[in-house]
Amino acid sequence: MLTSERTLSLSSLFEPASVAVIGASSDPNKIGGRPIAFLKRAGYAGRIVPVNPGAAEVQGLRPAASMAVLDAPVEHAIVALPGHQVLAAVQACARAGVRAVQVFSSGVAESGAAGDAERAALRSLARSGELRLLGPNSLGVFSTPSCFFGTFATALDGAWPRPGPVGVASQSGAFGSYFFALAQARGVGFSRFVATGNEVDVDVADCIEYLATDPSTRVIVTALEGCRDGRRLARALLAAHAAGKPVLAMKVGRSAGGAAAAATHTGALSSEDRVFDAVLRDTGARRAHTLEALVDAAVLASSSPPPPSRDVLVVTTSGGIGVLSADAADEHALALPPIGDRAAHEIAALAPLGSGRNPVDTSAGIIGDLARYAAIAGHALASRPYGAVLCFLAHIGRNPAHWAQLRGPLGALRARHPSLPFAAVLTAPADVVVELEAHGFAVFDDPSRALAAIALNAPRHTRAPRIAFDAPDPALAMKRAPRDEAEARAALAALGIRFPEESHVHDADEALRAAGRLGYPVVLKVVSPDITHKTEAGGVALGIPDASTLNREIADMNERVARRAPKARRQGFIVSRHLAAGVEVRAGVHLDPVFGLVASVGAGGVLTEWLDDSVIRLAPVSTEEARAMLTEARVGALLGGFRGSPPCDLDALAQQVSRLTAIAAASSERVRALELNPVIARPEGCEAVDALAEPIGDPT
Amino acid sequence: MLTSERTLSLSSLFEPASVAVIGASSDPNKIGGRPIAFLKRAGYAGRIVPVNPGAAEVQGLRPAASMAVLDAPVEHAIVALPGHQVLAAVQACARAGVRAVQVFSSGVAESGAAGDAERAALRSLARSGELRLLGPNSLGVFSTPSCFFGTFATALDGAWPRPGPVGVASQSGAFGSYFFALAQARGVGFSRFVATGNEVDVDVADCIEYLATDPSTRVIVTALEGCRDGRRLARALLAAHAAGKPVLAMKVGRSAGGAAAAATHTGALSSEDRVFDAVLRDTGARRAHTLEALVDAAVLASSSPPPPSRDVLVVTTSGGIGVLSADAADEHALALPPIGDRAAHEIAALAPLGSGRNPVDTSAGIIGDLARYAAIAGHALASRPYGAVLCFLAHIGRNPAHWAQLRGPLGALRARHPSLPFAAVLTAPADVVVELEAHGFAVFDDPSRALAAIALNAPRHTRAPRIAFDAPDPALAMKRAPRDEAEARAALAALGIRFPEESHVHDADEALRAAGRLGYPVVLKVVSPDITHKTEAGGVALGIPDASTLNREIADMNERVARRAPKARRQGFIVSRHLAAGVEVRAGVHLDPVFGLVASVGAGGVLTEWLDDSVIRLAPVSTEEARAMLTEARVGALLGGFRGSPPCDLDALAQQVSRLTAIAAASSERVRALELNPVIARPEGCEAVDALAEPIGDPT
Repeated sequence: MLTSERTLSLSSLFEPASVAVIGASSDPNKIGGRPIAFLKRAGYAGRIVPVNPGAAEVQGLRPAASMAVLDAPVEHAIVALPGHQVLAAVQACARAGVRAVQVFSSGVAESGAAGDAERAALRSLARSGELRLLGPNSLGVFSTPSCFFGTFATALDGAWPRPGPVGVASQSGAFGSYFFALAQARGVGFSRFVATGNEVDVDVADCIEYLATDPSTRVIVTALEGCRDGRRLARALLAAHAAGKPVLAMKVGRSAGGAAAAATHTGALSSEDRVFDAVLRDTGARRAHTLEALVDAAVLASSSPPPPSRDVLVVTTSGGIGVLSADAADEHALALPPIGDRAAHEIAALAPLGSGRNPVDTSAGIIGDLARYAAIAGHALASRPYGAVLCFLAHIGRNPAHWAQLRGPLGALRARHPSLPFAAVLTAPADVVVELEAHGFAVFDDPSRALAAIALNAPRHTRAPRIAFDAPDPALAMKRAPRDEAEARAALAALGIRFPEESHVHDADEALRAAGRLGYPVVLKVVSPDITHKTEAGGVALGIPDASTLNREIADMNERVARRAPKARRQGFIVSRHLAAGVEVRAGVHLDPVFGLVASVGAGGVLTEWLDDSVIRLAPVSTEEARAMLTEARVGALLGGFRGSPPCDLDALAQQVSRLTAIAAASSERVRALELNPVIARPEGCEAVDALAEPIGDPT
Repeated sequence: MLTSERTLSLSSLFEPASVAVIGASSDPNKIGGRPIAFLKRAGYAGRIVPVNPGAAEVQGLRPAASMAVLDAPVEHAIVALPGHQVLAAVQACARAGVRAVQVFSSGVAESGAAGDAERAALRSLARSGELRLLGPNSLGVFSTPSCFFGTFATALDGAWPRPGPVGVASQSGAFGSYFFALAQARGVGFSRFVATGNEVDVDVADCIEYLATDPSTRVIVTALEGCRDGRRLARALLAAHAAGKPVLAMKVGRSAGGAAAAATHTGALSSEDRVFDAVLRDTGARRAHTLEALVDAAVLASSSPPPPSRDVLVVTTSGGIGVLSADAADEHALALPPIGDRAAHEIAALAPLGSGRNPVDTSAGIIGDLARYAAIAGHALASRPYGAVLCFLAHIGRNPAHWAQLRGPLGALRARHPSLPFAAVLTAPADVVVELEAHGFAVFDDPSRALAAIALNAPRHTRAPRIAFDAPDPALAMKRAPRDEAEARAALAALGIRFPEESHVHDADEALRAAGRLGYPVVLKVVSPDITHKTEAGGVALGIPDASTLNREIADMNERVARRAPKARRQGFIVSRHLAAGVEVRAGVHLDPVFGLVASVGAGGVLTEWLDDSVIRLAPVSTEEARAMLTEARVGALLGGFRGSPPCDLDALAQQVSRLTAIAAASSERVRALELNPVIARPEGCEAVDALAEPIGDPT
């Protein structure tokens, strides 16, 4: 099914004209009674059909005995039945022509062989007909524009959603509804909410794509636990980006412990978090690492358009809070450009005890005449373009006399700059907070949090995202899966990867002849299909200056390797020229279970494990992309010329990285990973020293 | 004055038996009226004497016309007068035998020559007599045990402090009072509060020392902007540590931008933030980087004794929140050890749809019978020792029926473990939050914040703190300040720092003779008093293999250095043996304006600037301390043996670092900084390659 069809059909999920509740209950606290109570409370204008074979009346509505005997077709059905009745209910929905079915029930299609079969049956019902299926184990859907509340979320008990620009697509219902409760309490308004649960059919990528096209949604919040098809998720995020809608994303399972907990909890395929992170960044999504940061970012995003730049004006009544704000701005890569000279002069007249060019410190002395606070902020704001404003107001909102002085001028100032986010930071009673929110302030009680929220919404340098790739070039395919390093190297060399000249030798005589031909100093390395870390095994000797040293080293290496890796099969040695010094880089590409082929570069050689330097992109990558990756990596500082040394040949290096990823793409049936480590980068050219290939299946 | 005397005398500041308010006002909203209104509201039992020459009555009290005509002496006086009247008022207080004077007024002793003179006059009044002086520009003091409220803080307008274990010593009044307002709203109770302002006499170190001895204070919160005497601050922090009182500290000005803002704001001496950070860590203080983190840590600290370990039990109703908690635990270096097998079995019976060994996921299925939640947590908690508990409760507190099921069993569970912190994470109405706080829960709405607060309070490995040092050894003093690298090297070598054998030569002939004696390969380095970064100037050549190469290199180097550093005086070359490869380490010691002599170690050579690897301690350091520093540094991983290479001789290296700091301590009148970079560390021994000395004054 094409993406557009998949997405289009979600309108029956979010905005149905009629809804059946299968397993309807008269008790508004039960899972089958809650959606009916919510729909009635919301004033849903469509038809509500409780389905319950035994009841004469359900919450004032006339029920149908079953889906087979409806008076008229319904567009959307909610299944709130015990797990073992779910499959039959969905089949009945399909027969009745329902377009969207939600399954609240848990304990369906979750694990084991029976679960797999049920999952397959539900999916084939969804894919074969015209029906889309949400869940099982979904908390449901709500849409404020159409007053549709097909959910049993207890979060709605004390917190009814206001209409607003934020659309939520969460995998976990508990997570999504907890986010909703926190954000609702902070004044955020919502367009749509969906929790996708076990994702037998509709998944979070579908929902993000739907929200990207939804005119009532301006900001998308998504909470992810795992993912089956990473490239579809990436496409959905790009669709939101293209539609100009910021995606605020949270993805749990960052740490080893978190990933283990996620695997237990969801059973989903797991990808390295850093791959997820790279994809989120490259598709323009903004990733928060805590619920609070996600909520704060949504508060700011729903109060105004995003900041046009990362330049922030901070106006504070306290020097200490100004210093703290400067620290936080630095931490979040925001700038605090100084206000203009004339404005500084005008401000000095208004607040003689104040100081600072930005943060602007009005000093507590202005408490007697707080209209000056707004005047000072106005002068500063007029003096040069800023991307956002932070107003620290301490306890001003707690003193009615003080607040009466400030509220008018501050509201007027905010109204003069409707396209800028204004964060107000203060402790104040609820009515003052609500008034500030109504004026379009995003309200915080901590300046660091306000700046983090500005930063998460602010523009940043993102490369042009790319998800669709050219077909692999068959000319770059490896003819067979390499069985050891020598074969990997030969195959890669034949496809355009540059290595130093070398010989594969089997004894000291051959080695001495080869070294004589290559010229000293030489490098000696053991060849074995069983040894991946040759240095640790004692199988590498560098800078061998002459024949007698080489002769002795061959004996020593044989002894060392036999001792450290006694079971490894040895197949002779590689003798090569010892290369002139350069910067050591690692370049790799591997098949990720979620995202497919993934490229990475970083510091190589002994620095690889020590520094953990890694920049990741979906592969294959162009030469231009490879160049950007190398520049972003920590090793990029060395490549660019460091402490007087000349810069390395980045073009040659980027071309080799790009080529490696193209070879991997063309050889994806034979190898799941290729790595060059180190590649020696020099002012002119580069050469790979070691190559590693991980074959798929039996390499013979 | 001795520390103990200084501290002892602060009882008149915090717990006076009588107080005069100079500049007293009848208006309880004015700066001279507020403390009187607060003292009356608090029910202060001591005598309150308003001082106002013109009034017949002030807020119901009979005023004195001046400090010269008091009926009886007062212990404590508050000065709330315009800046130009302050000095005379403090002099009058001294004559009247006042023991503690607070100056609220700003615009006194702040800047310029007049300010310096006024500052000196105020300080000499304080130091010559029996009087201690707080401020100027202080927000004041309050003490809940004695109901003394000598402050004009507007934060008290809507938030009257509860008595409790938290004592606050802040430099900035605005910062301290904002912290107070946030923490008070979260249920924290306070013992004392002081804002030290411009610190002419009493400073934040005095106040921390006082709180360390104060029986009503169990936890100390301090907010720092700068510091004049770092070692006194360190001693105060150690006193709190020795008294078993956690110090939760915030120090602003971490970033370059923040430090610049702090310099503008306070005019205090500035030290590198990383030195501050090292001292806070080494004295056992717990540093928060945001106000929120400081408040959260205080909330946890005031709810219970500190966590006995870093092992946390997480019990959640949601798998997704469990994953998020595991991520946050990892980020904050907390462990989530799995619950015992038998407990897991018992829990599976109570929550069949749940999962996880820790985080324990009860699943939302237990909503119907929430007593099971407490039973599950109880089983888990009994199964092995934990240091803290996090209970995620989602929206349970919003539904009265659900809360009625849970409140009793949960409160009983908490009461069974009085010595453990319990964090409750939920969204709930205020009455539920207050009930949880009354039961001794620290209440949060974000699990990541709760875990950060647990981590900040939890035990950690801290070295034995050391602030008092032995007298410098005169035998290790440099006889004169070195004028260039050669002299620095010679002086250090004479005092026990090991360098490779070398010769200072002036032309190619001398160089060739020296190299012949030392043996090839050799290193050639330019000698110049004007070049500190020789590599950048083209003044270093490594691994010169033979005489002809050396001859050519001397000519090349002369040409390169002349081109790159045309103004530098050249004084020949150093020729030395090229050392066998090893790990390059940097060791330095320098005079910090706030903390005195400071030692640092890290990765050396080209890695120094690239990695910014630096472990810092107050100097001098013992061999044992130096060893710990080297192990903590990032380069420590290389020194310990990396990827099959043997470990370096850490004893020899640590001995050299310790020796370098002892030389600096003995030579503190001649040099303000010494650096060895790199020191080449090898499996046996180590040798310094380059030495740098920064002389004090004219080195001749």
